[in-house]
Amino acid sequence: MASTLLRNPTFFSSPSLPTFSSTITTPLSFHFPPSSSLHHRSSTPLRLSCSISDPPSPLPPHSLRRRRPDYIPNRISDPNYVRIFDTTLRDGEQSPGATLTSKEKLDIARQLAKLGVDIIEAGFPAASKDDFEAVKTIAETVGNAVDENGYVPVICGLSRCNKKDIQTAWDAVRYAKRPRIHTFIATSDIHLEYKLKKSKKEVIEIAREMVRFARSLGCEDVEFSPEDAGRSEREFLYEILGEVIKAGATTLNIPDTVGITLPSEFGQLIADLKANTPGIENVVISTHCQNDLGLSTANTLSGAHAGARQLEVTINGIGERAGNASLEEVVMAIKCRGDHVLGGLYTGIDTRHIVMTSKMVEDYTGMQTQPHKAIVGANAFAHESGIHQDGMLKHKGTYEIICPEEIGLERSNDAGIVLGKLSGRHAFKDRLTELGYQLDDEQLSTIFWRFKSVAEQKKRVTDADIIALVSDEVFQPEAVWKLLDIQITCGTLGLSTATVKLADADGKEHCACSMGTGPVDSAYKAVDLIVKEPTTLLEYSMNAVTEGIDAIATTRVLVRGNNNYVSTNAITGEEVQRTFSGTGAGMDIVVSSVKAYVGALNKMLDFKENSTTKVLSRKVKVPA
Amino acid sequence: MASTLLRNPTFFSSPSLPTFSSTITTPLSFHFPPSSSLHHRSSTPLRLSCSISDPPSPLPPHSLRRRRPDYIPNRISDPNYVRIFDTTLRDGEQSPGATLTSKEKLDIARQLAKLGVDIIEAGFPAASKDDFEAVKTIAETVGNAVDENGYVPVICGLSRCNKKDIQTAWDAVRYAKRPRIHTFIATSDIHLEYKLKKSKKEVIEIAREMVRFARSLGCEDVEFSPEDAGRSEREFLYEILGEVIKAGATTLNIPDTVGITLPSEFGQLIADLKANTPGIENVVISTHCQNDLGLSTANTLSGAHAGARQLEVTINGIGERAGNASLEEVVMAIKCRGDHVLGGLYTGIDTRHIVMTSKMVEDYTGMQTQPHKAIVGANAFAHESGIHQDGMLKHKGTYEIICPEEIGLERSNDAGIVLGKLSGRHAFKDRLTELGYQLDDEQLSTIFWRFKSVAEQKKRVTDADIIALVSDEVFQPEAVWKLLDIQITCGTLGLSTATVKLADADGKEHCACSMGTGPVDSAYKAVDLIVKEPTTLLEYSMNAVTEGIDAIATTRVLVRGNNNYVSTNAITGEEVQRTFSGTGAGMDIVVSSVKAYVGALNKMLDFKENSTTKVLSRKVKVPA
Repeated sequence: MASTLLRNPTFFSSPSLPTFSSTITTPLSFHFPPSSSLHHRSSTPLRLSCSISDPPSPLPPHSLRRRRPDYIPNRISDPNYVRIFDTTLRDGEQSPGATLTSKEKLDIARQLAKLGVDIIEAGFPAASKDDFEAVKTIAETVGNAVDENGYVPVICGLSRCNKKDIQTAWDAVRYAKRPRIHTFIATSDIHLEYKLKKSKKEVIEIAREMVRFARSLGCEDVEFSPEDAGRSEREFLYEILGEVIKAGATTLNIPDTVGITLPSEFGQLIADLKANTPGIENVVISTHCQNDLGLSTANTLSGAHAGARQLEVTINGIGERAGNASLEEVVMAIKCRGDHVLGGLYTGIDTRHIVMTSKMVEDYTGMQTQPHKAIVGANAFAHESGIHQDGMLKHKGTYEIICPEEIGLERSNDAGIVLGKLSGRHAFKDRLTELGYQLDDEQLSTIFWRFKSVAEQKKRVTDADIIALVSDEVFQPEAVWKLLDIQITCGTLGLSTATVKLADADGKEHCACSMGTGPVDSAYKAVDLIVKEPTTLLEYSMNAVTEGIDAIATTRVLVRGNNNYVSTNAITGEEVQRTFSGTGAGMDIVVSSVKAYVGALNKMLDFKENSTTKVLSRKVKVPA
Repeated sequence: MASTLLRNPTFFSSPSLPTFSSTITTPLSFHFPPSSSLHHRSSTPLRLSCSISDPPSPLPPHSLRRRRPDYIPNRISDPNYVRIFDTTLRDGEQSPGATLTSKEKLDIARQLAKLGVDIIEAGFPAASKDDFEAVKTIAETVGNAVDENGYVPVICGLSRCNKKDIQTAWDAVRYAKRPRIHTFIATSDIHLEYKLKKSKKEVIEIAREMVRFARSLGCEDVEFSPEDAGRSEREFLYEILGEVIKAGATTLNIPDTVGITLPSEFGQLIADLKANTPGIENVVISTHCQNDLGLSTANTLSGAHAGARQLEVTINGIGERAGNASLEEVVMAIKCRGDHVLGGLYTGIDTRHIVMTSKMVEDYTGMQTQPHKAIVGANAFAHESGIHQDGMLKHKGTYEIICPEEIGLERSNDAGIVLGKLSGRHAFKDRLTELGYQLDDEQLSTIFWRFKSVAEQKKRVTDADIIALVSDEVFQPEAVWKLLDIQITCGTLGLSTATVKLADADGKEHCACSMGTGPVDSAYKAVDLIVKEPTTLLEYSMNAVTEGIDAIATTRVLVRGNNNYVSTNAITGEEVQRTFSGTGAGMDIVVSSVKAYVGALNKMLDFKENSTTKVLSRKVKVPA
């Protein structure tokens, strides 16, 4: 796989060069003094002009990837190294409908470690027992899987600024080799007045005490965020941040919570904080940019340029409202232009895992990326398909600045032809491993059987087909109900009828039939007659994953139980009603629709069970 | 409808204030000297620090909208006014699969005029006869609909730098009250070497001659773009742009064709061009930023800050690869922060039409926006739904910076309850008009009948339902084939069978049945048996547009004819195989799937007919 990043006449086809994650094993140490900081309270104007006045020409590949510096919570030995903090599992999972099961969270955390993110924010442990257990499991497993280079991701848990939240977060992350507590409190006037109803003095006191409390538990890695920093008073920020540094914070994260700043402003904010916060030279500055005006990636880069060395991002940019800065955009922009425009910044991300991670998150959260999503959208590397007439494009570099292989994307003419109906179990397992799936023997057996059945009907079984099958068969919630059989009649006559046979947890069979306005409606009504769990269907969507009408279609549904399944939103403190998604894949869209619905119901029933014994009261308010 | 843009304690609930489009009718004239320009060839460093060092506080509403300055091609009387150039119909339509019919293009152009865009790039007339006719029709209709304030959009046609293209573009746009020709040629070394195979001297000569030729036709509004400007040599740009200004260009558009620049760089590029291009004070500078690194909105704003006064954008940010800067993001960022961060910039867009325009483009092109798309995504204004406990959010402004009504979004508790089965034809027509649809009496009758039929089955008919019905029933291509009846049996037995009855253009009925791997597969195979037009199904997707399983689901398919339907790509010059989309809406997903498929086939057959008499040879190369 070529590591050539940018195409140009000279470097386009250069052979593979050493990449960070696999090739350089010699331990190298870089020790630089921490970047200097000014202590006078001036507002140093930030100049964001580019470092070259010549036009950007296609760039040579990174000829030598540097080793990731050793992890020290409050400092980074190489001043050009930028930490990537992924909050897909916390901020991303807060997206409406993106609720993940513990199993799904663990899969994503494993994939994030493969990608090489420095910090995984694994969740908000105080939200519910389910959230707590998921963070704990990730800390115990992914948080202890040290690779041959000594890399293991920091596992971080979010908490509001109160003792119960912080204690709960610590109880969840402490099992990791590198545990971190991330606590926050709002600092903007509007939040102080309408949300917290506290004075600035009170807020400083709470922040200081709670950071101190986190350290007192034995946690040596504490991140603090002044929520809504983008709209907070500068002088107040200097003061509260100075105080939490004294109290032991090791990372200061600066969120543009409502996504209102422009890149020049956000960079200026970081520069001002760097210049005026007492003790700032002893901590790492971080960015967290929401995307409400579509500027989160630019703001994040502007923050990095101004001195931030931790960037908070999510896969595919998911998150509440318009989401967060996208990991893939931020990382690829740094990779493409870090040397030339950003003063040599670099990250430790192995970008070849970007596409697989993106697909996994898309699949599990149900947050589909749009076709024109930068880097990972279906069209991002698709030029108008069809006739490429007589080589008008003599050179890919005329319209392509990133080599698709660099993000783990196989060109379409290479993709998917690997397996057919004669392929054996071994080849199939190898392909799954290459695709990033680690299955146990039982799972492998189940999925291999389904693969063979598809291969009987389809000439070419593509990677996309395999991924759909894996997610359909293996990554399902614990089954309470299982679909056995279904028979449907429908059409323009308007008398759709469905008969459904389900098995319960004990294997007992249940049958029901129902009419409806269409085949899915009638089938879902028949399922409801059996399951008797009142729900509202919020979303229903379906995509054929591959070309051709014999493709496997994946159906996704989102339901909300009419009985309450609540959880606490970390940021707003509100109790929110959980929604549950289910997916089903198959060649018959009605069958896959019913599987998706049964899957969502199972997920909901699973959550119900876990939520019955709550570790925390839901009525906790800030502060404790 | 409140025009309050930004929420803050004082202004959140302020009553409606005068808005640009409807209230201020007194003609006001602003005459400012054109912005100054430096002629020495220095690289003036651009300082993009923000104009305020205090944090951004919630802003007051725009208390007085300024009148749009009179249109003069090469200058803008108010130095703070920014023109919005929408290229959804040209660059957006180039997205794989986004092919639009002439009817759809006209609908979108009408909506863009309602939105108040200054320039509509209506297409690339030399691409095919179909493209030519679409641009001409838009020029004749939308290009002549002057409103009470004297506003009418400029209608622009794209052309490569050759006489045939330019003549064709002129023949298409000349009927507009304000016609514009937009011609371009690549200027980067990599494009010169690998695509054009020309020297810089030759390229300058071609550009100069072709701009002169465009003016010689009687076109007084000529835009020129140096393609791939983001990677072009500065000195060469100064020279070629200086020459085309002398030749009569009125707007100079600066494309970051491959989306490689960071905001600071792109702003610097615009600043350098402004400072060093001879005669630049006599033209308007424009930006065109692709989104390959997710930075197009930020780059566009950076260009505006540095002096560009025309911004090229598309609705929803669609376009080839990762698309273009989004109109809605750029416009709302300027609206939110123009006064405070961008030196008072403003646009003439009536933002209340943003949501409707976005939905129309989404529906017609099939380019679905992701839920977390800024401004127009389904979640952009959706906070975690469910229990809002006891007013923890005392103030919307804590997490919301734009009032949803400002972009034409009704809050969910207001939306959709307007119509039920007792609603009359008059109320229904009024609602359609409010939703932005202008239907003739026959169309209205058809759609009203369907509305009544849905209302029989559904308690509440929402706006989303109505929009789905309109697009299903009214905005379909000319019907060659029409679905009459269908009957299907399917299920886990795996013996899906479909019987289909279609009517041809003469009303003759045709029947066929087929088996398949699922209900859709069997139905499509039955359709194929009748239509006998070999196609490949490229994409298949379905969404329920409203909550509840009794919702209307919209199916979208994308097909490619196995016989050639080619068109010329403006930028690459390649011949591309057209793909055709079809949509179908209904409560039975199998029926709506078949309608979508028949619609796509009709669109393809329609294009085939129009393409048989071509106005241009497809073998034209640059230059003529």
